[in-house]
Amino acid sequence: MKKHKLDTTNLPRVVIIGCGFGGLEAAKVLSHGPVDITVIDRTNHHLFQPLLYQVATAGLPAPAIAGPIRHILRTEIARGNTTVLMGEVMSIDSASKCVVLDGGEHIHFDFLILAAGATHSYFGRDDWAKYAPGLKTLGDAFTIRRRVLTAFENAERETDPVRREPWLTFAVVGAGPTGVEMAGTLAEIAQQTLRAEFQRIDSRRARVVLLEGAPRVLGTFPEDLSERAKEQLEGLGAEVLPGAKVTNINAFGIHYDMVEVGPDGSKQTVSHFLPTRTVVWAAGVAASPLGKALSKSTGCELDRAGRVIVQPDLSIPSHQNIFVVGDLASAKSYLDPDNPTLVPGVSPGAKQMGRKAARNILRQLAGQETQAFRYFDYGALATIGKRAAVALVDIPFTKKKIKFSGFPAWLFWLWVHIYFLIGFRNRTVVFMDWAWAYFTSQRHARVFPDPHALEPNAVVVHRDPNAPSPDTK
Amino acid sequence: MKKHKLDTTNLPRVVIIGCGFGGLEAAKVLSHGPVDITVIDRTNHHLFQPLLYQVATAGLPAPAIAGPIRHILRTEIARGNTTVLMGEVMSIDSASKCVVLDGGEHIHFDFLILAAGATHSYFGRDDWAKYAPGLKTLGDAFTIRRRVLTAFENAERETDPVRREPWLTFAVVGAGPTGVEMAGTLAEIAQQTLRAEFQRIDSRRARVVLLEGAPRVLGTFPEDLSERAKEQLEGLGAEVLPGAKVTNINAFGIHYDMVEVGPDGSKQTVSHFLPTRTVVWAAGVAASPLGKALSKSTGCELDRAGRVIVQPDLSIPSHQNIFVVGDLASAKSYLDPDNPTLVPGVSPGAKQMGRKAARNILRQLAGQETQAFRYFDYGALATIGKRAAVALVDIPFTKKKIKFSGFPAWLFWLWVHIYFLIGFRNRTVVFMDWAWAYFTSQRHARVFPDPHALEPNAVVVHRDPNAPSPDTK
Repeated sequence: MKKHKLDTTNLPRVVIIGCGFGGLEAAKVLSHGPVDITVIDRTNHHLFQPLLYQVATAGLPAPAIAGPIRHILRTEIARGNTTVLMGEVMSIDSASKCVVLDGGEHIHFDFLILAAGATHSYFGRDDWAKYAPGLKTLGDAFTIRRRVLTAFENAERETDPVRREPWLTFAVVGAGPTGVEMAGTLAEIAQQTLRAEFQRIDSRRARVVLLEGAPRVLGTFPEDLSERAKEQLEGLGAEVLPGAKVTNINAFGIHYDMVEVGPDGSKQTVSHFLPTRTVVWAAGVAASPLGKALSKSTGCELDRAGRVIVQPDLSIPSHQNIFVVGDLASAKSYLDPDNPTLVPGVSPGAKQMGRKAARNILRQLAGQETQAFRYFDYGALATIGKRAAVALVDIPFTKKKIKFSGFPAWLFWLWVHIYFLIGFRNRTVVFMDWAWAYFTSQRHARVFPDPHALEPNAVVVHRDPNAPSPDTK
Repeated sequence: MKKHKLDTTNLPRVVIIGCGFGGLEAAKVLSHGPVDITVIDRTNHHLFQPLLYQVATAGLPAPAIAGPIRHILRTEIARGNTTVLMGEVMSIDSASKCVVLDGGEHIHFDFLILAAGATHSYFGRDDWAKYAPGLKTLGDAFTIRRRVLTAFENAERETDPVRREPWLTFAVVGAGPTGVEMAGTLAEIAQQTLRAEFQRIDSRRARVVLLEGAPRVLGTFPEDLSERAKEQLEGLGAEVLPGAKVTNINAFGIHYDMVEVGPDGSKQTVSHFLPTRTVVWAAGVAASPLGKALSKSTGCELDRAGRVIVQPDLSIPSHQNIFVVGDLASAKSYLDPDNPTLVPGVSPGAKQMGRKAARNILRQLAGQETQAFRYFDYGALATIGKRAAVALVDIPFTKKKIKFSGFPAWLFWLWVHIYFLIGFRNRTVVFMDWAWAYFTSQRHARVFPDPHALEPNAVVVHRDPNAPSPDTK
């Protein structure tokens, strides 16, 4: 079997850390070149993150948006010069040119592409994490799915109406694309999906509250599209609170401040409390800690968000052989060399960076000059729920953009996302699941493992100290 | 909304504990009667257990074989006399006629149907559980899926061939239908699914070993079908060890004894050790601890396996209003009143018991005599893998049975299982997934959340004490 494969003994070794959009594109480009590639990821799968909120809200099963990395790269593996390893990188040693995995293995590299992405940031309040999970990994999505569905179950169990309210209140912190998608979908679940399936409660009475510190939702979009998004969210039954600054999150709810105009017309900051048992964190992202590790080893600079500041060709200063791409990179686009622009943290950006870093490595090996990164912006898209979305699309080769919203924008969003899903099969599955969900208002992935097995207290409404001991357990 | 519903204030309350095949059937029958029904389950879903091994082996996503209980019972809920609660029953008090949930709520009942099913038994060696997970719940299936896929990942990471072997050895303990299905599917995964997806290892060299204490596999089937099953398993590349008595399981492998014929022709017991990191427990089942709880409260008798010995009408002695059905019941069938036969622990048995218990409750309310349970046996089926199965099918109204095996048996098995899946949609999904898997040898659910998030050491091959501290974590 092996003998049909490429002899890689004398090929330069490229190590790619992280197999998100950036790492995957880099591996695909490199595998055609005279290099021996090792792809390292802490999970066994590539995640189509734009649809992760669908797994969290029980619209899609995990396998529909996540594919095994080694299956996606099977052609490259068969070619003989690509190795996929599941493991966690503990440190990077640029001097001895190796990365160290959990378990202690040292993996040598001639070239390194760091594409470890980002995780969520609680702005120094990591104690909020256990009350307000973020949405970055499959694990996160399963946690949120379980908490949301369990909240409705606990509301049905709770006989005291006062105690029931917090179970029927869902808060989303942060009104970027993910927060808007979550809030819109949660509202749909309460208004439509679960409508007729409870005896004691009316799921339509559930509140979905979207809190945003900034003055408007989808801050990266033009103002009028933000307005459309807010209207569409409210149309779905969600409450939108711009200018709400979260000051604390605990097991009982969210404390937040808002500037309000008093009876005498004077502005003052008012402190509010929203009682809720279910909070989703969609506010801050922080670069992977591997950025810090790299800076430790190479002295490269990090920006405020902990992202590695890269050179025009995506390598880091004084280390021509180390590249950083995707959400972990603070990169500029040199489409117009005279005034470079910051590259946004979106998947097309990561993909384009991954390809460019790979090509620059191949150019170095061919003795050519590396090239500066040029980001092609195809616009921005955000969905709010079934039938609703906002879109901002570039017209190629012009500086013009088209804006649209509502149903056409949703159809466009649907098409783009299904088109970019990896692998024919997943596309079909996702499309079928959506057609089904669309026409029936059902979400078929509404299952989660026995919570007792996961978190002993996950489904306990209020544990009575005088309750009989669980002798039957 | 509520006002269109049945007024349940004066209706007798039936509590059903457990929503497996037995509990679900009981609820459906009862909801047409003059009763107020409360269904309690510790999970939010009904599980189609015959296909759980497909989730464990990454062939199907969980939602394809599990449906939310309140969605399955939505018509009954809309009718107004059915309430579904997710919660764990801590104790049963037959005197005050109530069950106590986690959290301390007391739920009153006039009639009780106990359908809590079975869990796995390690024959008093519960310390084996963490090395050899059983397969009863979605959580179990995810654990096994993660361990199997992680074992191959660790084998690819392991550079020492001696240390690699245990990662490429998969043991299944117990050769009942589940054990046979697991072993056959694991062999397929190693031989076909993963064949071309590794660089350092050849997945086809992986060993799948099926250990069975009894002299043959599928002990409940006729001998010739056991023979077919063994041949088919070996044809798929699995090793079958009948007469292997497991004496210990630890993190390094399985110790087992076998009686062998020595050079002098004398029989002697030989102790063996199978080095493996991945063990699936399919050997023993134990009744739910709620059986013991019921016996505590009512004095009803339990059999050796901890199952409640029920009367002909499925109620328990001196408690006409308490019924036990499914795997938790030790019940007899009175098809021939003169020599009643034990009912096997299979899903058709549970369904038929659930319906009978429900009808007997309705008969009592109508002032009629309850009826003895009569089990209609439609035969037995077990699949070994793609293309292979064994079947034993009754010819209705005769005492004759047809036996067949191989591809026709597999097609029959496929048809029966898809037919009995709950809900049109799941049927389609499962069928599509299988058609896909069949023609491509692919299994598309090969993903699991980041193991670091679940078990800190799950993917660590061998942690080197001298490894750099994880300061980059």
